[in-house]
Amino acid sequence: MITVKGDILKVKTTYETSPNIALVKYWGKFDEEYILPLNSSTGITLSTEDLQTRTTITLTNKYKDIKFLLNGQPHPVSGRLKKILKFFEDKALAALGEELVPLQEGESQDTKRKTLKEFLNGDLSQLKLKIKSVNSFPTASGLASSASGLAALSVCLFDVYHMKEEYEFQRSVIARLGSGSASRSIYGGLVEWTGVPHQYLQKKFESKNNEIQLSEQEYEQLSKLCIAKQTHNETFFEDLDVFVVAYSFESKEVPSTSGMLQSTQTSELLKYRALNTAHVHIAGVKKAIEEKNYNELARLVRLDSNQFHAVCLDTTPPIFYLNDFSKNMINFIHQLDSALEYHVAYTFDAGPHAVLLVHKNHTTQVLRAIYEAFSINDMSSLSQRAQQTLKQAMQSELPESIQKIIQTNKPKITTTPSYIIHTKVGKGPTKI
Amino acid sequence: MITVKGDILKVKTTYETSPNIALVKYWGKFDEEYILPLNSSTGITLSTEDLQTRTTITLTNKYKDIKFLLNGQPHPVSGRLKKILKFFEDKALAALGEELVPLQEGESQDTKRKTLKEFLNGDLSQLKLKIKSVNSFPTASGLASSASGLAALSVCLFDVYHMKEEYEFQRSVIARLGSGSASRSIYGGLVEWTGVPHQYLQKKFESKNNEIQLSEQEYEQLSKLCIAKQTHNETFFEDLDVFVVAYSFESKEVPSTSGMLQSTQTSELLKYRALNTAHVHIAGVKKAIEEKNYNELARLVRLDSNQFHAVCLDTTPPIFYLNDFSKNMINFIHQLDSALEYHVAYTFDAGPHAVLLVHKNHTTQVLRAIYEAFSINDMSSLSQRAQQTLKQAMQSELPESIQKIIQTNKPKITTTPSYIIHTKVGKGPTKI
Repeated sequence: MITVKGDILKVKTTYETSPNIALVKYWGKFDEEYILPLNSSTGITLSTEDLQTRTTITLTNKYKDIKFLLNGQPHPVSGRLKKILKFFEDKALAALGEELVPLQEGESQDTKRKTLKEFLNGDLSQLKLKIKSVNSFPTASGLASSASGLAALSVCLFDVYHMKEEYEFQRSVIARLGSGSASRSIYGGLVEWTGVPHQYLQKKFESKNNEIQLSEQEYEQLSKLCIAKQTHNETFFEDLDVFVVAYSFESKEVPSTSGMLQSTQTSELLKYRALNTAHVHIAGVKKAIEEKNYNELARLVRLDSNQFHAVCLDTTPPIFYLNDFSKNMINFIHQLDSALEYHVAYTFDAGPHAVLLVHKNHTTQVLRAIYEAFSINDMSSLSQRAQQTLKQAMQSELPESIQKIIQTNKPKITTTPSYIIHTKVGKGPTKI
Repeated sequence: MITVKGDILKVKTTYETSPNIALVKYWGKFDEEYILPLNSSTGITLSTEDLQTRTTITLTNKYKDIKFLLNGQPHPVSGRLKKILKFFEDKALAALGEELVPLQEGESQDTKRKTLKEFLNGDLSQLKLKIKSVNSFPTASGLASSASGLAALSVCLFDVYHMKEEYEFQRSVIARLGSGSASRSIYGGLVEWTGVPHQYLQKKFESKNNEIQLSEQEYEQLSKLCIAKQTHNETFFEDLDVFVVAYSFESKEVPSTSGMLQSTQTSELLKYRALNTAHVHIAGVKKAIEEKNYNELARLVRLDSNQFHAVCLDTTPPIFYLNDFSKNMINFIHQLDSALEYHVAYTFDAGPHAVLLVHKNHTTQVLRAIYEAFSINDMSSLSQRAQQTLKQAMQSELPESIQKIIQTNKPKITTTPSYIIHTKVGKGPTKI
């Protein structure tokens, strides 16, 4: 929305986005600058109703310089973010300048309308960005906050600059330049993000120190290949509930960017995964979703999560994102498996927190089983929706098989999660 | 030693053996019955002076049935052990029967000597085994106690039955039938245990459910191929000290036998490792030892340990042998790396305990660094030799670089080891 008050011009937009949680993980870059992933990945975007990044971007001549506030605190503008902003300054600002300044109070419809450029006396560089971004969930602790944040930024920037995509899915490419997995948060439902073609990977892995030189043109081509797109929209997932079970809100020890680089440089198993298993897992996940085969979906999601963390462990020095909490959760979920008709999937990103996929028929039982086995004992550790789900769960007895699992596990489980969010698959970025 | 008192005949022998700790790990069987390993492995046998299994075997007509005491407690005779015993009953008992009963008191050298068979009136089946085995270190907690135990059993049985090897390294094959890695404990120094040939692996992995049918003859042939042998004797390792840092003495959650089977059936990365990386690691380890390149040795040993645990994590359901203690130790050792000229290797078997390889120039410093960073504060957590080493370490200041590592890590390390053994590479089974 463009507004003018006196000589102050503002172009402003607000979006809410949410994390896209990978069901088949992204780990390792083909190229650090273009953020081209070694392997394709696929994931579901969660609902902005339950956890969201709310980002407001204002372009205005009110300030002398860019302002960036993250969760209310001034935040440095990273090199990656600068690169994204440069893209818009280069390509979009001139087009934006041709937009008309809206009528001001008292002006009649017949008033000769000025363009933004005319209003600013031809100097569009007076427009400075103000970015305000707030996460409703922990930041930088392995809950895909940067993915959600960069996705919000990308859609906001396209909108605030009145910029059309030059090619399909360009928004995902722009988001990717800020944070790889952000490209998947640009759309709702199940989103697939394409990795570099097989023959490029093989060349890279066969070359000395895994380094190959490509022309700028080739990189640009690859960049346009490595887009994200929706394969199933959110309505396809009406049977599926999601729990985000956060262990703690501390920052993670190894940031994904450096962790990924270490793995790419040192892990033999990463190469095998990139070349041989990730795409098979993706095909399997898509088929399982198509067929609503939740057992198979759960099996593949768990398997891929474990394989990703195996690659982290195969790295020198090894990276540990899973801790004793994660281990307790993994063991517990595998035991619930035998008791439930529809299996429960767990998946862990670059942090100790679990994301669980549960068939809606079992949502209440699973939440209550976790609440009891992990000795939570405190409703304030649950999001509002999770509290409602738990209250509902308390209205009927748990099946004996689940009670038994709780009783045998409870003494062995020495960890308690900090917070549980109950959510669903969402419809992607939402304009506010 | 054969003794006779009245009508009681005893053939008795005692050996001490110690665990062989894999530098390149064994994980996964080609065949469950013959215990043929998917990949070759290599490891060092520790010194019986510092940790040992002491096994005494008596063959006697005093008892009506087999007796097996492990650490003073009656222990069931497992199917695998029965298989080993059957081998000796079939092949060795008749030969043993031809041995002469020693002279008894009062008998002159001219006395017509009886054979054991004659002494027992032709019925050799009267001879029953008594096995007494005692470990000086924790049993079944991931410290290779079964490997050491089965190795002791194998050498004792060959000895007590007066049995010669029918082919070279047969002792290692017999030990293997009881516990795969026991085959490496049969010799001192660095021992390599050969896996099944590449083409058999490929056939297995390409077949349905990874099952291939071979003839009994082929299995017998493979069994004789999968022998263990010494590649460097213990004197080659005079520069190397070893610390066994035990986390606790609890039994491990997933026994290696079932864990290995799970990995073989479910881990994609295990197949890759068996076919592509393990033999490369072995070649590297042998070269590094040959060249006394301890940095390279440490790098490879750490890498292979991590890859083995990565395969465990890639298993369905995932197997976790490493815990927060192991993670603390791994992070700490990687930091010591930068401060020491000769790198320190860690390696973890199917349990949370660390085995560290340290150049003798740094033994005192490394032990003291661990003692301080892990807040041990109790000399009784150290073996006698480790206590002497620590006392020596206290006589001089630690270099500032190491002090700094201790100070930055100490607050983050939340675990304390139960026990530290200071040992060396040993010369293998020793007759007592």
